Amino acid sequence: MNSENDELPHKLLLGKFISFEGGEGTGKSTQVKLLQDQLRAKGIDVILTREPGGAPGAEEIRALLLTGDPDKWVPMTEVLLFYAARVDHLQRTILPALKAGKWVITDRYADSTFAYQGAGHGIDALIIQKIHRITTGNFWPDMTILLDADPKEGLLRANNREAEISENLREDRFEKMAGSYHQRLRHAFLEIAAENPDRFHVIPAAGSIDAVARRIWQQVTAAYGPEIGQF
Amino acid sequence: MNSENDELPHKLLLGKFISFEGGEGTGKSTQVKLLQDQLRAKGIDVILTREPGGAPGAEEIRALLLTGDPDKWVPMTEVLLFYAARVDHLQRTILPALKAGKWVITDRYADSTFAYQGAGHGIDALIIQKIHRITTGNFWPDMTILLDADPKEGLLRANNREAEISENLREDRFEKMAGSYHQRLRHAFLEIAAENPDRFHVIPAAGSIDAVARRIWQQVTAAYGPEIGQF
Repeated sequence: MNSENDELPHKLLLGKFISFEGGEGTGKSTQVKLLQDQLRAKGIDVILTREPGGAPGAEEIRALLLTGDPDKWVPMTEVLLFYAARVDHLQRTILPALKAGKWVITDRYADSTFAYQGAGHGIDALIIQKIHRITTGNFWPDMTILLDADPKEGLLRANNREAEISENLREDRFEKMAGSYHQRLRHAFLEIAAENPDRFHVIPAAGSIDAVARRIWQQVTAAYGPEIGQF
Repeated sequence: MNSENDELPHKLLLGKFISFEGGEGTGKSTQVKLLQDQLRAKGIDVILTREPGGAPGAEEIRALLLTGDPDKWVPMTEVLLFYAARVDHLQRTILPALKAGKWVITDRYADSTFAYQGAGHGIDALIIQKIHRITTGNFWPDMTILLDADPKEGLLRANNREAEISENLREDRFEKMAGSYHQRLRHAFLEIAAENPDRFHVIPAAGSIDAVARRIWQQVTAAYGPEIGQF
């Protein structure tokens, strides 16, 4: 996979774009908030967003994707819905923020499509790569944090969280898929990280929330020390 | 545009696939029903369907596409939503019917995306063509009937129909676009028809419903006389 943003004039984007990736229940949504807090404490203007979603239209598409039966969509339809939401998210939220000098942290981005619909559901990575190029101009984050955990551990956390949710609309379509699917996912994410070593940082998701947050902060300060006034 | 179905094993499809195209208010939905009736009278098993939609998931996507403000979606998101719905429609409705020997008549198919999002909203036809190939295996109808009318005439009919609708959910996002948009659409459809003379039949939509139905029936019997027992 080519992780170069080779078509968009990236130098016009003043902010940094950081994505978090990983399986269900690896603590992404907690860690994106903690990273936002730490960057804000350094005086940086940061927005937090997520995929699928992150813009009003994209959130409507999210509802179609994350609710219902596991076999509600054929895999190719799913890829197209994710990219429809992603293009909306990019055009309406991510790019305007980056151009205004804000940093953007997103809970999932395109690597999730390569892992879930590619490795997980058998869509050829080259096909997803073509769609990514055509529709986003091959746009990728500056840095991607992969939170890595054993799927059994991760799904356990996700199920505990589920139990606390009282709404009717449960976003559990992907969590309901079989255990072997989640093992394939983990391996897919690790492979993608290995193929993109300049962009990816693999962080073990085990341990206390604070310990994981410290590991993430280390990577961010190592990469962007000057930008955040920390050398 | 290449109108050959060059990747799917088309010979395994026993039924015929006929699409109707054209601007707003050209009478497509009336004429597809009349053609279905005439084919049924010849003993042919025919299903009627439409785009966007034609399958349960695709109909959910239809609701996202056809309601709301004209600028609700950026054009590329729109293309991806149409193709997400189209792939669902193909896999869940059209291909199973054709394989079972049924004929399928659809009110709109991919030519509408080339006309509306391509010529109408400036997405390069080559980009739509790439997406069409990747996602459908370059699948096209056996025959396409283009109902052609002056946009002023067509929109007048569509507005009269609108006035009769009492539901809150008005599928009028495309009708609300400016008049010049609808002129571009008409020319785009005529150009696509000219580039695909073997598949397209341009039928003037002016005149009585019966007169238009007779013109369509002439083309269908000319092409499929043996199949429908009419020489």
